[in-house]
Amino acid sequence: MGGDNAPNSVVDGAAISLKQYPDINFIFVGDKNKIEALIARHKKLAKISKIIHTEEFVTADDKPSIALRKKRQSSMSLAIKAVADGDADCVVSAGNTGALMLMALFGLKTLPNVSRPAIAAYYPTMKKNQYTVLLDMGANLQCSAKNLAEFAFLGTTFAQVVLGVKKPSVCLLNIGSEEMKGKDEIKEAATLLSNSKLAGEFKGFAEGDNIMDGNVDVVVTDGFTGNVTLKASEGTAKMISSMLKESFKSSPLSWLGYLFMLPALYSLKRRIDPRLYNGGVFMGLKGLCVKSHGGTDALGFSNAINVGVKMSIGDFNKHLAETLEKANLDSINNDKG
Amino acid sequence: MGGDNAPNSVVDGAAISLKQYPDINFIFVGDKNKIEALIARHKKLAKISKIIHTEEFVTADDKPSIALRKKRQSSMSLAIKAVADGDADCVVSAGNTGALMLMALFGLKTLPNVSRPAIAAYYPTMKKNQYTVLLDMGANLQCSAKNLAEFAFLGTTFAQVVLGVKKPSVCLLNIGSEEMKGKDEIKEAATLLSNSKLAGEFKGFAEGDNIMDGNVDVVVTDGFTGNVTLKASEGTAKMISSMLKESFKSSPLSWLGYLFMLPALYSLKRRIDPRLYNGGVFMGLKGLCVKSHGGTDALGFSNAINVGVKMSIGDFNKHLAETLEKANLDSINNDKG
Repeated sequence: MGGDNAPNSVVDGAAISLKQYPDINFIFVGDKNKIEALIARHKKLAKISKIIHTEEFVTADDKPSIALRKKRQSSMSLAIKAVADGDADCVVSAGNTGALMLMALFGLKTLPNVSRPAIAAYYPTMKKNQYTVLLDMGANLQCSAKNLAEFAFLGTTFAQVVLGVKKPSVCLLNIGSEEMKGKDEIKEAATLLSNSKLAGEFKGFAEGDNIMDGNVDVVVTDGFTGNVTLKASEGTAKMISSMLKESFKSSPLSWLGYLFMLPALYSLKRRIDPRLYNGGVFMGLKGLCVKSHGGTDALGFSNAINVGVKMSIGDFNKHLAETLEKANLDSINNDKG
Repeated sequence: MGGDNAPNSVVDGAAISLKQYPDINFIFVGDKNKIEALIARHKKLAKISKIIHTEEFVTADDKPSIALRKKRQSSMSLAIKAVADGDADCVVSAGNTGALMLMALFGLKTLPNVSRPAIAAYYPTMKKNQYTVLLDMGANLQCSAKNLAEFAFLGTTFAQVVLGVKKPSVCLLNIGSEEMKGKDEIKEAATLLSNSKLAGEFKGFAEGDNIMDGNVDVVVTDGFTGNVTLKASEGTAKMISSMLKESFKSSPLSWLGYLFMLPALYSLKRRIDPRLYNGGVFMGLKGLCVKSHGGTDALGFSNAINVGVKMSIGDFNKHLAETLEKANLDSINNDKG
């Protein structure tokens, strides 16, 4: 169990999720003594939990390739093994992202018809109860047209299973909405999608601000752009929130106004609370894998667990495999090529 | 004169700038009758303005390459010619970005030692009176290590001349701050910069949220990422502002609080007002060229003019040429290669 607040946030997060999904079981992988002491505080959780003991851990500084080769008895490696062996449906970790991706890739293997697994997550938008799925969030720094087109299928399946959107709309992130603009691989991916089973759902190009306007369910980009874009959005939200706080303190009157507005501000804060959107799903593997933010708390970790639970209940991988088989992107590629 | 609110916003913007910089002169390029009527409303402006008449315009839908070849008598083309001929120091346009870039590139030509001109702009950060220059904003969708390293020199010169920062710090935008992470060209650009005249100012990699944290003066990235990142930030700011408005209306008490806070909120709004940061500079050409946002008003257009004025007063191109000659990036490249 990794992450800045582990193992407390992990165990407490599991207890929160168990209240929402009373039928789930947990296998905690890590130091038995520490975990037992933490679980003991949650009666119901203690009843349905197993522990796999290990004292080896992947650290935040471990190079992924070294972790893969040398840390075979680490909690991360053993947790992935539990999924590979069918003992668990999903691994949820707040540890080293690169190591988790590499270990999951080798431990779980990719699904048929998936050329590149990708990380997806969903975010709040300007419209209430409307979220946008963004992928890839960092698994693939550079992507081909086929990769991007495939991500559209991964993302829409995610929106269906996790967010319950029946026919999710999907766009490719670009620097303009005109057809002639943008990188070649994005323009080619657009052609692929327009000729694919997703032709009806594919709505063309989206620009950076369309991620938050609530008009599209899934936005597809390469992992470099996805990662930078998400962090820039988080940074902007943080900047405005810090400026707002300064404003509140700028005069006694505005401080009074702030007090009057506290309940409304609290509800706004809840709406964009990053903990509620915690959980990047590593999709396209023969097993479910969710990456929690390293710095999150119990509530945030619980949300990462919940994403995994929804995917498991919704039989995500079965749907994805069927979707990709029907998609048959290679045949389109060949027709064009 | 292009842009959604032209020619009014252009002429009124010039009048605002003239108050701040009484020594500047304007050449307006466009429909003489329309412009004369607008200028007549501003006495001082009327005195120092010339008009180059034309009835041909580049539209927002014109393909840049077609505009370049066919619209030689357009206001955009003639305005660039005025700079090329030495009649003006800087062209400021709110028209078609792609056409402006292509026409300026052909009309003004690149400076020696510049392999790729780039678009820069600066933005507010969490720290008061601390801005971050971001480039490239869309001129070059894909960049080599050398391009990125060169942009660092362009960006720091911009921060010196326009923002008055003596020794601007500079970072490369990446998906992690660790040395091993990221795309090859970014890692190579880091090596180049570490061995360049900017070694002291180069602070390594920045992530998306570092653009707004006020800890670095210049952030360098390719034009695709820069454009998407900026739009995602704008989208996030818009989303939060819309959510805030909803919060204010959620109860009579919060509405009262909102009224108490109005002056403070107004000052916050001013601090992140996009009009105050309007003006993307197309750097690296033998003449100054500023692109204003198409949808801006007079205040916004005036800010774009002011950026050009500051560059002209500060002898930007002379500084840039000297900096790049001293930088001698090719010699570093050869040493390594």
